Amino acid sequence: MNSDVAAPLLSRLQEIEDLGGAISLLTWDQSVKMPPGGAEARGRQLATLGRLRHERWLDPGLERDLAAAEREAADGAAADLLRVVRHDLERATRVPNDYVARSAAHAAASYEAWLDARRGGAVERVVGMLERTLDLSLEYAGFFPEVAHPADALIDVADEGATVASLRPLFGRLRDELVPRVAAWSAAPPAPPLPAGPFAVDEQLAAALELAQAFGYDVGRGRQDLTAHPFAIRFAHGDVRITTRAKVDDLTEVLFSTLHEAGHAMYEQGVDLRLEGTPLAEGASAGVHESQARLWENQVARSRAFWSFALPRLQHRFPALAAVDVEGAFRAVNRVQRSLIRTDADEVTYNLHVIVRFDLELELLEGRLAVRDLADAWAERYAADLGVAPTGAVDGWLQDVHWFAGTIGGSFQGYTLGNVLSAQFFAAAARELGDVEAQMAAGDFAPLRTWLTENVYRHGRSKPVDRLVRDATGGALDVEPYLAYLDRKFEGLAGAR
Amino acid sequence: MNSDVAAPLLSRLQEIEDLGGAISLLTWDQSVKMPPGGAEARGRQLATLGRLRHERWLDPGLERDLAAAEREAADGAAADLLRVVRHDLERATRVPNDYVARSAAHAAASYEAWLDARRGGAVERVVGMLERTLDLSLEYAGFFPEVAHPADALIDVADEGATVASLRPLFGRLRDELVPRVAAWSAAPPAPPLPAGPFAVDEQLAAALELAQAFGYDVGRGRQDLTAHPFAIRFAHGDVRITTRAKVDDLTEVLFSTLHEAGHAMYEQGVDLRLEGTPLAEGASAGVHESQARLWENQVARSRAFWSFALPRLQHRFPALAAVDVEGAFRAVNRVQRSLIRTDADEVTYNLHVIVRFDLELELLEGRLAVRDLADAWAERYAADLGVAPTGAVDGWLQDVHWFAGTIGGSFQGYTLGNVLSAQFFAAAARELGDVEAQMAAGDFAPLRTWLTENVYRHGRSKPVDRLVRDATGGALDVEPYLAYLDRKFEGLAGAR
Repeated sequence: MNSDVAAPLLSRLQEIEDLGGAISLLTWDQSVKMPPGGAEARGRQLATLGRLRHERWLDPGLERDLAAAEREAADGAAADLLRVVRHDLERATRVPNDYVARSAAHAAASYEAWLDARRGGAVERVVGMLERTLDLSLEYAGFFPEVAHPADALIDVADEGATVASLRPLFGRLRDELVPRVAAWSAAPPAPPLPAGPFAVDEQLAAALELAQAFGYDVGRGRQDLTAHPFAIRFAHGDVRITTRAKVDDLTEVLFSTLHEAGHAMYEQGVDLRLEGTPLAEGASAGVHESQARLWENQVARSRAFWSFALPRLQHRFPALAAVDVEGAFRAVNRVQRSLIRTDADEVTYNLHVIVRFDLELELLEGRLAVRDLADAWAERYAADLGVAPTGAVDGWLQDVHWFAGTIGGSFQGYTLGNVLSAQFFAAAARELGDVEAQMAAGDFAPLRTWLTENVYRHGRSKPVDRLVRDATGGALDVEPYLAYLDRKFEGLAGAR
Repeated sequence: MNSDVAAPLLSRLQEIEDLGGAISLLTWDQSVKMPPGGAEARGRQLATLGRLRHERWLDPGLERDLAAAEREAADGAAADLLRVVRHDLERATRVPNDYVARSAAHAAASYEAWLDARRGGAVERVVGMLERTLDLSLEYAGFFPEVAHPADALIDVADEGATVASLRPLFGRLRDELVPRVAAWSAAPPAPPLPAGPFAVDEQLAAALELAQAFGYDVGRGRQDLTAHPFAIRFAHGDVRITTRAKVDDLTEVLFSTLHEAGHAMYEQGVDLRLEGTPLAEGASAGVHESQARLWENQVARSRAFWSFALPRLQHRFPALAAVDVEGAFRAVNRVQRSLIRTDADEVTYNLHVIVRFDLELELLEGRLAVRDLADAWAERYAADLGVAPTGAVDGWLQDVHWFAGTIGGSFQGYTLGNVLSAQFFAAAARELGDVEAQMAAGDFAPLRTWLTENVYRHGRSKPVDRLVRDATGGALDVEPYLAYLDRKFEGLAGAR
């Protein structure tokens, strides 16, 4: 791509990115720092900046500059950029402005209704909202008449290239494999949890951040704050923040929240600086992003090797942990239990929560399930897959915000794709790095982080997910490494009990 | 103004305000929360959003909608809005885009050079930068050929309507009155300061915020954070934040920083909600804004009455204050001392620091002083007016950021206008409120705040400053009430010693 040709396009993309960075800061502040009185104006500011950004995508000049660059394009890096920009432009132009406005207004209203229902308000109102959400989701899918399944249009937003045709058999296989494993591994009484403290929150935050920094999270280009719902967010290559939460009586809350979000953040911090200012300076997909969070949270921070490194450091800060040994800590953070709440679930059970939601989304979109029957369908699936029954809507179908702040379809697949991919990436890294367990036990996370930077982080969104996975692991998306990882860890734990 | 005619204009103004709110948040975060790595992208994001906002002012549609509204305009409120919008549009169109870009780039470069020189780097580089700043300042003034003095164009940015012709005699008079007063009141050894603690910073922040809330600062629509240089900033009517700073051994640092910034913030929180989304939802001018900060900081928080309310509360938090009595505290926070640093100066001496700068700015702009002679001119004026000599550039002409992050001219007059106006507003309030001293001693700040809301806050930028001052105080801008206030307080203190 001739740089004279590319310059006007790059300048347009930079402007879109700058607006995106400002929008991200407005969002971060909304969750982290904003006083209650700021809510109304903040919603308006976000809407205005979102509209300005969307207008920039729709500017005929962008299409013209993109087409000019496409005519010139030759080499690999430029081709990646043009492919992604064309893809994003296509999506931006397919979705009409009035749909964006209607959908955003409905999302805000249904979020309010959801909050109200969770506080004991009318469930009937949420049902009505969700019916409208389903209509809007199908309307969105209709803007992409070429897709084989309406969910494909929605899945593509977060996990470009993934389809119902590819995910349904993968998730079906995983469900069939996991249901008996959860039953077996949760049969015996669980290992004792870590001591209940109390642990001073400031000290917890410092301890968790110290471990995140040991992994490689760069606080010179980030920071950590407390929020109700932890997240990672990027404003620019030099500013990728995490939030976390803490419980005074449960150290695992802050540890796994922080280390999970640090995984997301290290991915964004590791994107090649040359991709800055373009849509390539993001993660490859929701699934790949989640895989990087899960890899550090589970493959690393729930390993025996990690705890032999981390436990003495934590004991130094928290004398209440004095009597814990590495094996006890390892067992405490790897308890498998049937559960009702997705976000509290262990790493084995977690996927069953996701697959229930994925399947129900498809049934709703296919017209095989009515919104008013969702509560029953949910209870049925939880009984069949997890062996538990919700006590009500709040620990049942109203537990997640996703359907009440966006669309039905496309919200959940990334979580399980992330778990599956985390095992593939970790196994590939371990094959190349030699004794990764010994490295982790010694607190030397640099080899793993360097491997991830080389094979995942630095590419940002340059490679399509299937190419990224193949280049990094030597194979396609595959559940076997994940099942092998689970069996290796949890068979051992179950056998030893 | 017919509301159908006004609607398109108001919608444009709202968009400009939303961009302004986002810009303010980016700025706040830059000082308060941003990690060092975020600086480069933040500068770019600010430039992009600033440009987008400027483009909205230059949109021919705005001129068209404004002209249509002007043809319809009838009543008072609409006329105020149209007058201010026409004024701002005039200024936006007079200043070419390329100047804005060159000037912003130079401001960033000269700020870096200033930081470097303050850390011991080359002073020669800053001189060069400042010569260019002077050229740019004169270039700016040239866009307004109708002004009588080049500084008038620069002063108008912050203090609309104020001119060299009106300020020079005012400041000259003030200087003549203050120089002998500072000499007299600083002749005897100063009263002992408050005990040096140490005071826990968290407790200091809580104490200062509690007093700000007693004044009426609404933390449901604001928050307080720590920064190197305290400021107040508005994102919207519902979100006006303050920052402060603290020293472990000097409680007055956090108290007067917080209460000063709370004064700024209460002004913005008190603007009539109906002005939201327009350029009227700001303070009337830099001088009036400063007057509201100074009023709460000096007229209130440096009064004997305030300390009889505040001291027991502070003693409750800080046992180190146990031996202090109200008279001792009042004396400790009202020590008059000749000083080198403007921001550390007492309320009497402060104005002499400002007037030196104001006069030197005029000499530079008039070509009567060369930048390379500024250091000497500075030292001369400090010797003559304040009776002290800088030890070097850092406690001399390099002490303030203003000339190294903007223009020469227009930066300083607001501070002294604020001091003068604070006394006028307070005296007018006291005339109407009865025993305002007794109210303050009882911790009842509502009458004063209500008077200020009614006479100053709620009007935002609706009234020109001269009208605002006249309506509130019954007279024009006038140094006599300020001199009377100083004499009443400091003659008493000096006489009693």
